Amino acid sequence: MKKIAILGSTGSIGTQTLEVVRENGDIEVTALAAGSNIALLEQQIREFSPKLAAVWSEEKALELKEKVRDLDVKVLSGMDGLLETAVQPDAEILVTAIVGMIGILPTIEAIKAKKDIALANKETLVTAGHIIMPLAKEYGSAILPVDSEHSAIFQSLQGGQRKALHKILLTASGGSFRGKTREELENIQVEDALKHPNWEMGRKITIDSSTMVNKGLEVIEAKWLFDVSADQVEVVVQPQSIIHSMVEYEDGAIIAELGTPDMKLPIQYALYYPERRYLPGDRLDFSSLSQITFEKPDMDTFYGLKLAFEAGRRGGSLPTVLNAANEKAVAMFLDRKIRYLQIPEIIGTCMEHHKIIENPSVEEILNTEQETYEFIKNRW
Amino acid sequence: MKKIAILGSTGSIGTQTLEVVRENGDIEVTALAAGSNIALLEQQIREFSPKLAAVWSEEKALELKEKVRDLDVKVLSGMDGLLETAVQPDAEILVTAIVGMIGILPTIEAIKAKKDIALANKETLVTAGHIIMPLAKEYGSAILPVDSEHSAIFQSLQGGQRKALHKILLTASGGSFRGKTREELENIQVEDALKHPNWEMGRKITIDSSTMVNKGLEVIEAKWLFDVSADQVEVVVQPQSIIHSMVEYEDGAIIAELGTPDMKLPIQYALYYPERRYLPGDRLDFSSLSQITFEKPDMDTFYGLKLAFEAGRRGGSLPTVLNAANEKAVAMFLDRKIRYLQIPEIIGTCMEHHKIIENPSVEEILNTEQETYEFIKNRW
Repeated sequence: MKKIAILGSTGSIGTQTLEVVRENGDIEVTALAAGSNIALLEQQIREFSPKLAAVWSEEKALELKEKVRDLDVKVLSGMDGLLETAVQPDAEILVTAIVGMIGILPTIEAIKAKKDIALANKETLVTAGHIIMPLAKEYGSAILPVDSEHSAIFQSLQGGQRKALHKILLTASGGSFRGKTREELENIQVEDALKHPNWEMGRKITIDSSTMVNKGLEVIEAKWLFDVSADQVEVVVQPQSIIHSMVEYEDGAIIAELGTPDMKLPIQYALYYPERRYLPGDRLDFSSLSQITFEKPDMDTFYGLKLAFEAGRRGGSLPTVLNAANEKAVAMFLDRKIRYLQIPEIIGTCMEHHKIIENPSVEEILNTEQETYEFIKNRW
Repeated sequence: MKKIAILGSTGSIGTQTLEVVRENGDIEVTALAAGSNIALLEQQIREFSPKLAAVWSEEKALELKEKVRDLDVKVLSGMDGLLETAVQPDAEILVTAIVGMIGILPTIEAIKAKKDIALANKETLVTAGHIIMPLAKEYGSAILPVDSEHSAIFQSLQGGQRKALHKILLTASGGSFRGKTREELENIQVEDALKHPNWEMGRKITIDSSTMVNKGLEVIEAKWLFDVSADQVEVVVQPQSIIHSMVEYEDGAIIAELGTPDMKLPIQYALYYPERRYLPGDRLDFSSLSQITFEKPDMDTFYGLKLAFEAGRRGGSLPTVLNAANEKAVAMFLDRKIRYLQIPEIIGTCMEHHKIIENPSVEEILNTEQETYEFIKNRW
């Protein structure tokens, strides 16, 4: 029986991971960590019987402890809880489905404990790819991408020669505002930005998808995951989200992964890799599909994407600035404190004012995040 | 240095194979066999210095012998020439690029001589797949598909789990008459049928493409090459010929190979498999591509395809009848002796009147071919 631990079990990826576990029936869940949704976490504990449960908030952890006192489960809180979840001795795979740079340290500890990582936490590679990838190599941990695009690239690379890889074609839906001009984006409201045409996702990532900053973070992730330069990653807008991404080899052959928009596929692929299993759900039907269209991304209107390419090229601590500034700016937009177009504006200003640290340590990465937050707080 | 022999060196695939050899500069050509174009064959002999050259016609062989008497090359004719080419001792790969059932015996002998087969001869698997595939397994020969669709499937299957393969999505351009009704096909002339929208090919195969019988033969080939049932092969019409074919796994993931229409890619892939190398030529440009469209094949209008599915399902000697009847009917159409719509009509009538031989020997296959020819001769 395969054994997994999950960081972020009550979020979108976390709950879908548990659906995959439920449907397959042959995976043991040894530890679950969540932010604050203890009602759902309690249900999960009762269904999946982990040995360990962690809640970020200390208060909520105490509450949960009380609720599950009839069960044989250890309850922890804070970073200690995340770290214990990450290194839970029985787990072979750690699913990192929490959002934010808070995922970096637990991921590092899990790698050192020789666990494979089913990676759904963007920030880990965006900010610390230069630490994570060599460490995973050193400890023999597989980094298995869970999001749709990187899983598609990973699938498309199976059996292919890595040295013959020419470039990565990262597909993008283009978000809800594809085709709009800057002028049309001036008065975008939170409600407008929270609609996504193809994928159901959390609030933060839906905004990131609309600004294409999400795609930019994926460019940086792809750079680390597949050992290419940012310039070897080309973003192709494919509004129907049918092609989940592609790779192009030196001979001109392009290998692509296509499918319906179902996150359970990349989750299941990561959990059972290299095995494929039946997955219930809709299948692509080409006769009803009729067409797939392609566009170039408009990097002038969606210049968060252009900034991400710049951060990916320059490297060092700059991607951390991009990510932290975006995080804060999106939160401010969701709180209706700034306008939509200020999101890339804030990111750009933060990047301009940052003095890049080459090869930053985890501490320097976390400091850079804080400094970026401070900078924004003082300025906007 | 890799060493190859080519059956059918002066045809479309043969000449393109030699272009790939020329561009790479590290393949030795040990034997060349051609039908009757000795002018081109002489050029090829002078450029590639094979040890052996074979010409189908005895008369032309004598002519060629005279022309190349200054060179150290053995010249043979007839089936002996094909067989000697097939088993030429130095060659590691035999490229079978001749058209027709004439390719079966040389392919069998090459397999027995433990050569890998770069297969471009459709008839081999269509009529004798039940003999060829087990034989290749027995002798450890790889059967490397050279045509665009099967190479795409082969590429898409690399690194995937064969047992998790759900179905094959064989793409089709739909031919020059896609979208037309039976009525509109009534008065099709040879000139109309020889135009193909995407690929440059020989006359026979261009007609086969327009009737979709070519796609039907590919369905039967795919069945043998990838060890699936005919019903696991779905034909998807994709008029731009951008997606060269796809495979669908049990989890719903579809892996596809895409590219520009360049036969040199599958040829080079087969010759260097599993290595990929730089190949000069155009690349797919998604920003100028704009769209890929899909349709269901119209098997009522193009019922040669339906007949091929039937032959693929029933098996035995029936695919031989389909192939032989099609060959003769296309030749008669090109000679303006029958109308376009009589091509599938003749195939259907021949199939109806045939008493299927299960598991036919090569002799029975060749007899079935002759009987089909006779049947047509007596009836039309």
